[in-house]
Amino acid sequence: MNEFELIRTYFQRDPLDPSVTLGNGDDAAVVSQHSDFETVVSVDSVIAGRHVPLMCPPDGFAARLLGRGLSDLAAMGAEPQAVLLSLTLPTLEPGWIDHFASRFHQLCVRFGVDLIGGDTTKGPLSAHLTVLGQVPKGSAVTRSGLKSGDDLWLFGPDLGGARAYLDVLDGQQPDHEIWAERYWRPEPQLDAGVSLRGVASAMIDVSDGLCQDLLHLLDHAVGSASVKLQSKLFPLCPDLVDRFGQDKALEYALTGGDDYCLLASIRGGVTIPTRGRRIGMVVKGETDRILLDGEPLPDAWQLGWDHSR
Amino acid sequence: MNEFELIRTYFQRDPLDPSVTLGNGDDAAVVSQHSDFETVVSVDSVIAGRHVPLMCPPDGFAARLLGRGLSDLAAMGAEPQAVLLSLTLPTLEPGWIDHFASRFHQLCVRFGVDLIGGDTTKGPLSAHLTVLGQVPKGSAVTRSGLKSGDDLWLFGPDLGGARAYLDVLDGQQPDHEIWAERYWRPEPQLDAGVSLRGVASAMIDVSDGLCQDLLHLLDHAVGSASVKLQSKLFPLCPDLVDRFGQDKALEYALTGGDDYCLLASIRGGVTIPTRGRRIGMVVKGETDRILLDGEPLPDAWQLGWDHSR
Repeated sequence: MNEFELIRTYFQRDPLDPSVTLGNGDDAAVVSQHSDFETVVSVDSVIAGRHVPLMCPPDGFAARLLGRGLSDLAAMGAEPQAVLLSLTLPTLEPGWIDHFASRFHQLCVRFGVDLIGGDTTKGPLSAHLTVLGQVPKGSAVTRSGLKSGDDLWLFGPDLGGARAYLDVLDGQQPDHEIWAERYWRPEPQLDAGVSLRGVASAMIDVSDGLCQDLLHLLDHAVGSASVKLQSKLFPLCPDLVDRFGQDKALEYALTGGDDYCLLASIRGGVTIPTRGRRIGMVVKGETDRILLDGEPLPDAWQLGWDHSR
Repeated sequence: MNEFELIRTYFQRDPLDPSVTLGNGDDAAVVSQHSDFETVVSVDSVIAGRHVPLMCPPDGFAARLLGRGLSDLAAMGAEPQAVLLSLTLPTLEPGWIDHFASRFHQLCVRFGVDLIGGDTTKGPLSAHLTVLGQVPKGSAVTRSGLKSGDDLWLFGPDLGGARAYLDVLDGQQPDHEIWAERYWRPEPQLDAGVSLRGVASAMIDVSDGLCQDLLHLLDHAVGSASVKLQSKLFPLCPDLVDRFGQDKALEYALTGGDDYCLLASIRGGVTIPTRGRRIGMVVKGETDRILLDGEPLPDAWQLGWDHSR
């Protein structure tokens, strides 16, 4: 099976979204926007042996790839439209590809995106996903705008589960259904993202660890700002404290990557349009940029999760 | 140097195009369209050891990557706007990255695109480029529409040079300046592409070999169609015939990949708005889909250039 047959067999589907004027199979795809909307676009990679285990199950590979990519659109408040997939496969194992493609298309339907292009090459397993969405002009929620007087909110299930699952993969912990789900089936917070347009002063998705992603918001703050977090407000993934103790559980929640919650700053007193958790507040700049229960964070926590380690 | 520093140092530039509302450095980028335009988008890979030599010079890697990617926009008649770069690097050799980034940005300016996003990971050298452009609504030139009575035209420098350069890389031929240029500095035919909107009935860029790309046009023809090519009309890269003889030169021109000319079908008698070469004509369907000087093509020629061999 050559590249053309592979693409035809597994990856060509008729587009469902009427905004996709021309889908997969030409030199490029064509997508139209509602008038007064603009295009939001991002690209993300999932590399086997780095972001996922070398021997990666096909359905998990598909779900992490789409979850991670679409989470970037959620963090902008964008409605997803389409994706392009650049896929590198070591060998043509029809079983693996078939499972991967089925799961990929199933999730595309669920998230309301069409696969409109891409390519395949032979090599170590990796995938690069381009995601396209749209927002009304001027309404994208960026990382810039957090301000003293805002509250800090989290939208999404809970924290630390994907990090804890790495210990399962390493054989240091027995399997755990919910951690496995957080790791293999991250849920991009698309509806929450859209509902926070015009509400959040700044927003980011938690992909590199909450502390590190919070530092990105602080880097782009309006005026001087520090953040006071309260540990008792954190939504911890089940059994983290039981298995690791309070300190380690908090460390996993604050520094582990791949949670794909949305972290937003919202002016105090503003009505929150969707279910979320207030985890702290933004104050005028102090010596420490982040305080947890009144104490500065360990330096190492602020380095966040490096996907290359 | 971690991923964030690498991106900040080498890949963050302020966008030049006013249509780029938000460039590199957030969860996603935001691009606006002129009203009545739509977005054209495609993704392409360049893998070291497959599409380019394993030890690939940084400026050639940048030029081939952008040339190959933007050629897809040219083939749609689209005006380029922006690119996103997903880059995998084996080690952080500052010299290599510095050269690559300089050349990449230089070419972005020349082709009028902003680098608006991407990511970097560690691994065998490869790059995946997403290209974004725009066309007036409904005016994208697709692969569908070639018809009996059309002429076949080529727009771009000449054919076979990039294929001949592979023999230089293999040590089978002494170096050749023009072949090297065709291979390392492919020139996307962007202006020609735009000028052919409303003129070409179908268009494709010659990336997998002229015969194979012509077969894609025939696959999407309106009604039954065959193509008659005349070898004396082909623009051959200099010295192909001298070094390889007439037959091999023609084979390289018709089957070698990476020429990045535009191949368009245009109704007979229509005024051609840009410099090009008529290389044949489209007739009613015959037993052979492509005839060269009245003879059927060797079967192997129709398989085209497989980048994975």
